[in-house]
Amino acid sequence: MKHINDYIETHKDRFLDELFGLLRIPSVSAIADHKPDMYRAAEYWKNLLLEAGADRAEVYETPGNPVTYGEKIINPALPTVLVYGHMDVMPADPLEKWNTPPFEPEIRDGKIWGRGADDDKGQGMMHAKAFELMVKTGTLPCNVKFMIEGEEEIGSAHLGKWCAEHREMLKSDIIVVSDTSMIAPDIPSITTGLRGLAYWQVEVTGPCRDLHSGLFGGAVANPINVLCKMIAQMTDENGKITIPGFYDDVQEVSPEERAMLARAPFNLENYKKALGLEEVSGEAGFTTTERTGIRPTFDLCGIWGGYTGEGTKTVLPSKAFAKISCRLVPHQDHEKIAELFKTHFESIAPETVTVEVTPLHGGQSYVCPIDLPAYKAAEKAYREVYGKLPVPTRSGGSIPIISTFEQVLGVKSVLMGFGLESDAIHSPNENFPLEQFFNGIRTIPLFYKYFAENLKS
Amino acid sequence: MKHINDYIETHKDRFLDELFGLLRIPSVSAIADHKPDMYRAAEYWKNLLLEAGADRAEVYETPGNPVTYGEKIINPALPTVLVYGHMDVMPADPLEKWNTPPFEPEIRDGKIWGRGADDDKGQGMMHAKAFELMVKTGTLPCNVKFMIEGEEEIGSAHLGKWCAEHREMLKSDIIVVSDTSMIAPDIPSITTGLRGLAYWQVEVTGPCRDLHSGLFGGAVANPINVLCKMIAQMTDENGKITIPGFYDDVQEVSPEERAMLARAPFNLENYKKALGLEEVSGEAGFTTTERTGIRPTFDLCGIWGGYTGEGTKTVLPSKAFAKISCRLVPHQDHEKIAELFKTHFESIAPETVTVEVTPLHGGQSYVCPIDLPAYKAAEKAYREVYGKLPVPTRSGGSIPIISTFEQVLGVKSVLMGFGLESDAIHSPNENFPLEQFFNGIRTIPLFYKYFAENLKS
Repeated sequence: MKHINDYIETHKDRFLDELFGLLRIPSVSAIADHKPDMYRAAEYWKNLLLEAGADRAEVYETPGNPVTYGEKIINPALPTVLVYGHMDVMPADPLEKWNTPPFEPEIRDGKIWGRGADDDKGQGMMHAKAFELMVKTGTLPCNVKFMIEGEEEIGSAHLGKWCAEHREMLKSDIIVVSDTSMIAPDIPSITTGLRGLAYWQVEVTGPCRDLHSGLFGGAVANPINVLCKMIAQMTDENGKITIPGFYDDVQEVSPEERAMLARAPFNLENYKKALGLEEVSGEAGFTTTERTGIRPTFDLCGIWGGYTGEGTKTVLPSKAFAKISCRLVPHQDHEKIAELFKTHFESIAPETVTVEVTPLHGGQSYVCPIDLPAYKAAEKAYREVYGKLPVPTRSGGSIPIISTFEQVLGVKSVLMGFGLESDAIHSPNENFPLEQFFNGIRTIPLFYKYFAENLKS
Repeated sequence: MKHINDYIETHKDRFLDELFGLLRIPSVSAIADHKPDMYRAAEYWKNLLLEAGADRAEVYETPGNPVTYGEKIINPALPTVLVYGHMDVMPADPLEKWNTPPFEPEIRDGKIWGRGADDDKGQGMMHAKAFELMVKTGTLPCNVKFMIEGEEEIGSAHLGKWCAEHREMLKSDIIVVSDTSMIAPDIPSITTGLRGLAYWQVEVTGPCRDLHSGLFGGAVANPINVLCKMIAQMTDENGKITIPGFYDDVQEVSPEERAMLARAPFNLENYKKALGLEEVSGEAGFTTTERTGIRPTFDLCGIWGGYTGEGTKTVLPSKAFAKISCRLVPHQDHEKIAELFKTHFESIAPETVTVEVTPLHGGQSYVCPIDLPAYKAAEKAYREVYGKLPVPTRSGGSIPIISTFEQVLGVKSVLMGFGLESDAIHSPNENFPLEQFFNGIRTIPLFYKYFAENLKS
């Protein structure tokens, strides 16, 4: 451990400078105008890998955003770790909610602040710097490959195909991903499950043009009123989703496994307090942890229609829109769910409006078995840095590409997350504690060590 | 009639130039940035009145937008007509739906196109030009006062008080307003009823910040889902509004009167076709004409929350908002309705969210008796220009200040509208047919003539 701590101590300011350089690039994949920023981020990653000691690193084109790939092959007979991360970030709006500008990172109160500080530039940077550390201190125990993509936040639309086209190059024994979180700095945990995702935009059209709400109101269907009624029907009074067939394939978790999950520390009062809530909400018959860990959801990510400016405008609008997402659990197929949603949503539309459903993206759920050698190596590495055995947890989040890796490359992933719930990823004031950043850089080389040892023995 | 037609023929190009000058001023009262445009519009009106022959005209300050007042007193013993109109217009968004820019008026296909072409710059200009015509041809039969305000589209917040402060100056025998429409060019009609209005903004807050919809989705109330459920509950499956007490004061119209209203020509197929609708909608047990004429409404004028940009963002937003309006019918008091709404809306909010209701504006409904001498004079004037006796109709729209005039000034209003349903007021591509504009200028002097004669005899 000493060489690790010494190297970090000597280079920590440069590590942060290099992270800040990456955070300053507004690589928002959801917004087409930021396309040039995606290339800037890809080149930035290429140079990071070369300077850290990669044999080669290149920016690969895809029909969407680029992928940066780099590798260091010290001995083809040794095991290979493939690091996956993403260079793209979520949109930063609402901008007015940020205490400091999202793309001007700074350190305050022991934390790094900025869009991507955690997700996934901060966590990705831990791997680049841990790799550098192992190379420069002569402790790299195996081969390493890096695959950093630019479309994770918009569904990794092109990475699956790119992986299939580069299957040989990507050959590896394990994929390591730091894009998840742990329970708390004093309660280390490793994510063993991810939810799947389906995401749609819906458009409800009433009259063919905006109308005067006085002259027509009461006689013409208002598409906002109708959209609200349709959305209201999608869940019942018990928080169950009403799409016929939606739960058919849901993996029902056994009472034993639910009891085990319930052992993970969770304080409902603190949870509510942190979120400013009087009361939590969700599917009847499940706890808060179960509602995010093992159950699917139906959430509106956005809604808009009519006049949304200052003051009043009396209008009966022509159209109303919503962005709708479902988190899915093991065995639910996102394409099947997308079909069920579309059919049901169209079927409940009254004949006073027309409805258009556009699928925007989707991905399958993922489960990492806790007896996987890589999981065991990660467990050991965390224990050494955090002083406690990490708890296996199921995350409510989705990284759809992880299940694609398994299908396309035939390789399992281990999810070594160092984020915290308070990091506000996808939200204003995203942040990442310095301690977690540096503990990540401490943990990763240990993982390599135990993983390589395990596989050799 | 000859002197009227001759004067219009000689001056019609200048009339249109003067209207276009007014239409080019983007006097959008709902948007604070347009405040200077309100003053430009007020000065424009002042000069219009002075050039038309007013003894005096002035721009009066209010705590909100200015009021232009002008008058010509030819003989204090004669009757006085008070013309009311408004210089402000609705916001022009969505801009991309306009075929030509909203504040660059032009004539195409026999119509004037631009925001305010009808509502209410075009209709207001008819009065300025009819006044000029009567002055210049020596046919003005009575005193005239003009009161042109700048806040009609945002609820005339300050005009009631301004009227109370200038009661003596505004003394008159009748108020004439052209801010409504008629059934069709070959079916003249005069509006005898206006609906009242109540308008609120609501804000629903779930968690205190935007959350990751994966990590928290399913366990934390989504304020958009909740807002949709709340709005869905506000009307039942028969299109009845569910606010307790909402219908208590609604004037139930007798079967005889409903039969009379049903005589107004209305073609449901044409109506649906013009609006691009498969089917109309509304309160069970009432016809389309009744739904807009004699029944109250519950319409969403706007809704927004979460991510509304391009592509996908998986977010569980902190807040959702809506702009909600009710059109009210005679005997419903807008302040009482506002209380009932607020109480009910708050009462149906689940404890997983907090709700804030902000009343934005309101106004009472209005009825003009068809035996009023001014109504009779208007009827005669329309018949002379259009060749047919106009039909009395109840409009679904609201001009809240009209009922305020009756309360504050003790004077009735006659609603001499020349707009058409196809004028797209409050919508993109607002327009006003040239024929209606000039027929308005023909009809108004005849109204003055018959009204002054009636009152003298």
